[in-house]
Amino acid sequence: MIKAGIIGATGYAGAELVRLLLAHKEVEIVWYGSRSYIDQKYASVYQNMFQLVEDRCLDDNLEELAKQADVIFTATPQGYCASVMSEEILSKAKVIDLSADFRIKDVSVYEAWYGIEHKSPQYISEAVYGLCEINREKIKEARLIANPGCYPTCSFLSIYPLVKEGIIDPSTIIIDAKSGTSGAGRGAKTDNLYCEVNENIKAYGVAVHRHTPEIEEQLSYAAGEPVIINFTPHLIPMNRGILVTAYASLKKKLSTEELREMYQKAYQEEYFVRVLEEGMVPQTKWVEGSNFVDVNFKLDERTNRVIMMGAMDNLVKGAAGQAVQNMNLMFGLKEQEGLQLVPMFP
Amino acid sequence: MIKAGIIGATGYAGAELVRLLLAHKEVEIVWYGSRSYIDQKYASVYQNMFQLVEDRCLDDNLEELAKQADVIFTATPQGYCASVMSEEILSKAKVIDLSADFRIKDVSVYEAWYGIEHKSPQYISEAVYGLCEINREKIKEARLIANPGCYPTCSFLSIYPLVKEGIIDPSTIIIDAKSGTSGAGRGAKTDNLYCEVNENIKAYGVAVHRHTPEIEEQLSYAAGEPVIINFTPHLIPMNRGILVTAYASLKKKLSTEELREMYQKAYQEEYFVRVLEEGMVPQTKWVEGSNFVDVNFKLDERTNRVIMMGAMDNLVKGAAGQAVQNMNLMFGLKEQEGLQLVPMFP
Amino acid sequence: MIKAGIIGATGYAGAELVRLLLAHKEVEIVWYGSRSYIDQKYASVYQNMFQLVEDRCLDDNLEELAKQADVIFTATPQGYCASVMSEEILSKAKVIDLSADFRIKDVSVYEAWYGIEHKSPQYISEAVYGLCEINREKIKEARLIANPGCYPTCSFLSIYPLVKEGIIDPSTIIIDAKSGTSGAGRGAKTDNLYCEVNENIKAYGVAVHRHTPEIEEQLSYAAGEPVIINFTPHLIPMNRGILVTAYASLKKKLSTEELREMYQKAYQEEYFVRVLEEGMVPQTKWVEGSNFVDVNFKLDERTNRVIMMGAMDNLVKGAAGQAVQNMNLMFGLKEQEGLQLVPMFP
Amino acid sequence: MIKAGIIGATGYAGAELVRLLLAHKEVEIVWYGSRSYIDQKYASVYQNMFQLVEDRCLDDNLEELAKQADVIFTATPQGYCASVMSEEILSKAKVIDLSADFRIKDVSVYEAWYGIEHKSPQYISEAVYGLCEINREKIKEARLIANPGCYPTCSFLSIYPLVKEGIIDPSTIIIDAKSGTSGAGRGAKTDNLYCEVNENIKAYGVAVHRHTPEIEEQLSYAAGEPVIINFTPHLIPMNRGILVTAYASLKKKLSTEELREMYQKAYQEEYFVRVLEEGMVPQTKWVEGSNFVDVNFKLDERTNRVIMMGAMDNLVKGAAGQAVQNMNLMFGLKEQEGLQLVPMFP
Repeated sequence: MIKAGIIGATGYAGAELVRLLLAHKEVEIVWYGSRSYIDQKYASVYQNMFQLVEDRCLDDNLEELAKQADVIFTATPQGYCASVMSEEILSKAKVIDLSADFRIKDVSVYEAWYGIEHKSPQYISEAVYGLCEINREKIKEARLIANPGCYPTCSFLSIYPLVKEGIIDPSTIIIDAKSGTSGAGRGAKTDNLYCEVNENIKAYGVAVHRHTPEIEEQLSYAAGEPVIINFTPHLIPMNRGILVTAYASLKKKLSTEELREMYQKAYQEEYFVRVLEEGMVPQTKWVEGSNFVDVNFKLDERTNRVIMMGAMDNLVKGAAGQAVQNMNLMFGLKEQEGLQLVPMFP
Repeated sequence: MIKAGIIGATGYAGAELVRLLLAHKEVEIVWYGSRSYIDQKYASVYQNMFQLVEDRCLDDNLEELAKQADVIFTATPQGYCASVMSEEILSKAKVIDLSADFRIKDVSVYEAWYGIEHKSPQYISEAVYGLCEINREKIKEARLIANPGCYPTCSFLSIYPLVKEGIIDPSTIIIDAKSGTSGAGRGAKTDNLYCEVNENIKAYGVAVHRHTPEIEEQLSYAAGEPVIINFTPHLIPMNRGILVTAYASLKKKLSTEELREMYQKAYQEEYFVRVLEEGMVPQTKWVEGSNFVDVNFKLDERTNRVIMMGAMDNLVKGAAGQAVQNMNLMFGLKEQEGLQLVPMFP
Repeated sequence: MIKAGIIGATGYAGAELVRLLLAHKEVEIVWYGSRSYIDQKYASVYQNMFQLVEDRCLDDNLEELAKQADVIFTATPQGYCASVMSEEILSKAKVIDLSADFRIKDVSVYEAWYGIEHKSPQYISEAVYGLCEINREKIKEARLIANPGCYPTCSFLSIYPLVKEGIIDPSTIIIDAKSGTSGAGRGAKTDNLYCEVNENIKAYGVAVHRHTPEIEEQLSYAAGEPVIINFTPHLIPMNRGILVTAYASLKKKLSTEELREMYQKAYQEEYFVRVLEEGMVPQTKWVEGSNFVDVNFKLDERTNRVIMMGAMDNLVKGAAGQAVQNMNLMFGLKEQEGLQLVPMFP
Repeated sequence: MIKAGIIGATGYAGAELVRLLLAHKEVEIVWYGSRSYIDQKYASVYQNMFQLVEDRCLDDNLEELAKQADVIFTATPQGYCASVMSEEILSKAKVIDLSADFRIKDVSVYEAWYGIEHKSPQYISEAVYGLCEINREKIKEARLIANPGCYPTCSFLSIYPLVKEGIIDPSTIIIDAKSGTSGAGRGAKTDNLYCEVNENIKAYGVAVHRHTPEIEEQLSYAAGEPVIINFTPHLIPMNRGILVTAYASLKKKLSTEELREMYQKAYQEEYFVRVLEEGMVPQTKWVEGSNFVDVNFKLDERTNRVIMMGAMDNLVKGAAGQAVQNMNLMFGLKEQEGLQLVPMFP
């Protein structure tokens, strides 16, 4: 059994990790970290775990946790993981960081967009960006995983095949994304109250959202050239789910069939990325609770643009599920272990 | 592998059966019955099953199905199962009927409340009411299971311990129930449109809802005397979940501790019924996607009444999950097999 | 023009007062009180008021406000209004208190249920309980109105006709109420976050909710004898609306027609109470945004109980609308002035 | 009093017309047309109108209606209005058509996108596109108004100022729109059931939505050159509201201040278009129930694009409210008459 510890276990992503790991037959959770609920029963914070989890929450202590665990998940605010990382920790346990601390290779870009100093830049180059479909082999060897952001995962996987093939003009990429409210976390803020979110929709972080450089960096690798995009997230009155609608101009005329082949080629071996049949649009409800990303596209010959779409559960493939997928790869388990979840509908 | 067939696989309860059975390691689905979608790919009706189910929908043919399957689930409108039941079918396959056809022992009561003639009353006495926590041993031997209704399951389990102990006056029982909209089915009716249900709440079937005699019959067995109740269901703007709030007068003064002991005694061996800690109220979200029923109560000394509460996922413990639980018992499997689902939150 | 001031203008009830008073042709708002947003533009807190309200929020200063305003609305936490009330204030302006401070005549009951000391009990007897349909004449003469609570308004009006006629046994009254989330206020609490409320339902304050004694007191007046009830509120995933489902036993056999006549008799002159046609159930969506209360009942001959139902917008008839109705009466205006709002559907 | 008739009074747009016209002091509704509910009480179809509307629904008979009414609103399926239009009708009553029949000047474009033959193309050139902010003077003289579509109204008003000024490249315009479910109408379709829409988001009509040529035509007038765009609508789990997020490249470097001046210039005299303060994003909840369109923009210097946003209530400014605004202009009333509705929040 792999011994797993979670720092930040009482946030929504942390709680989703608990849900997935409890059902994972190769894993035992040994540490429920939560600075806000120290010594309280975990199941009193998440009553869905009543009689399933008897443990109490522990204060954050990564050094002690590294001694007890084989793998540490940090589902913590930006800056925390970087502030406590050390060679000693990495020598004892594998670390999968769900925050953004190690996702961006250029530390100055990180510091500019996140507005905080990076406390352990020496580990950035070692960290592997944990997008399993792209970096599978590197992940297997890694000690430190930068688990991708929710928007970047869905955005990147939706448009990757066409960027990779070099048939869209990267300078024309516009990503309009929509997310359920669990992405905003469990902090008690007026803006996230039921009555403020329900029956409402708005854009936020327009032109300045922190996931922008993360998406750009990954697209740049795929394109083989620097990519600058527009990324606009929106808050949607639903608990879970991200939908991405992305736009780009084709460099030359291509048929729907040719585009489809590029998607098939990119994902034919991928269990978690489902290329939908022609005419079907991705819907967040069809992937809810699962690790799937549903993608599809529509060619608009009038404008010579392609509209690329992707749907995903932000807490699963966008956070905890992808973290488990990374863990499976790192520990030589079957990649789908504990993740063959049938989406729940309705 | 147990071969399972589903009649009515494209209703919400049928689709939930598919979700659960796909994850059940001892079962293989051999028949996706749907009169409305004959020959269409099942995954085109429920796109969440894309790449998970390749089968096409088949017309209803219980006789043929009985030859191919070990167990048949009928998630069909009232009257259907009774209209096709036969000795030949029962001799070849076990049948778990999710409709109300075999739940009520007195056929005249069934016919009065449902307004239809019962086409095979000869099987009513044989059928076992599939409330596993109550009729476990009989279920193991049964050929034909009347899978309980959603409201009756939640209502009964919420108040059973105190009725069984004879300490509440059965004539004072009032059940006020609230259900998510999946309970209304997938039929295209104006009343169930998003805009009609959202931001709205109403009672329906007041004093005439068909689940009333089912609840009364089961409570009568527990009480050892005829029980007549008030039952009022309400439609709630959410997909899943039933909450029951039940009221009854105590026959004599009892303490919270004494009442708690009765609940503990009734359910201490039951995995799927969770008696919450004092002061915690059942919430539907805490059991969503799982087979759990969370119950608790509050003693009101001012009125000498006890308020009994229960929460459950109407599609799982209230339909498909309980059907699988019955199947597990009928086939000698572990009762929790395929049902150790961690509730999904949020 | 009547000059109105609002203390607590940035809570949901306060904001609804602003919405209603802006459309009231006899009123001018002269004071937007909000301790939390002093000096901020009101429209920056409630962006719906952009270009409609140019004022900034003011600190609480009831004495100063009394000099400037003809009527003061206090939409404030329990205890505030009592703590600042004075003869000087009442001599200068009429006060309509939306908190519970002056609703309960027996100060010991108030202090027991609210857990705070009442700071100005000397004004309790003078205060008129502002349920316009019941106390219309007294309200016209009042200086200080105790604006009724949301649950009490809907509960009382739903069952009043039958209590008044003495044909139900008051000791059997059980009120099961359901409220949208705006009733919980705009405070930033985890329990009221979108993801905690959405797709969820729960009871709260079971047997101890503070509106219980308020309902009991008013029912006692109507019954002419002390009434003790069970009252259970539930939190519903919707913004607005209260639905009450109440149960009581009839003292003798009565027909639906006889019961209907009692409802008609009680409300035939009332514009804001709509007795629905037989067979129609009250639905919160049908009164949203308006000052209507829709009521109806169902006789259950099997149990000799009557199920009484009422639906209302908790922010309008349950708070701000009723406050304006009181103001209209106090200032000799037409009672419906500014309140002839057509419910918004969907 | 203006006598108004509504054809299609039992659709959501028709019902919203009823809501607005009941509160309009210069109008009397003389005809509630509904082919589906002939002879039924209107208030039995829309119970919010109980005791407010006593009329029964009438069959469609435009010729008879034209004799009785001063103005006719047709809130009917595409093709209906064109199929019954005649000189006789127009000579007797003004017609405001909420369908698309007279919005597009080029009949071949209409027929291509709508897939039906236009039955009275002779009236297309006479019809005035009823976007009041743009065509105010023409509307005053018109007999026949083509009331704009919901998406076109919000899309056009969000980007009009910059197109008009010629500072964005029209070929780069991409409009990503999100709509509440009332836009899908009250027809009983599985896709619009509560459980299918709730907790879900999807794009639809990708690259083929019928509102595309309508937006393009109006933008072309503003730009003075043909404009081809991408338009992608999404279905959102909320009742009301449209949010538009539009993208375009600037032809040259401009500052936020310069762009802001263009918005101010375009809308400084417009009551119903609110240009929000810098940094504020339009939110649908802030305009709900009102005739406002809130617009704003964000300059992204990294990509040299401007992101333009607009929020509106699809049933008010996107349908019934704009129709009333047109009526006010046509009859020489104050443009805001009956439309000074304070948005309802929450």
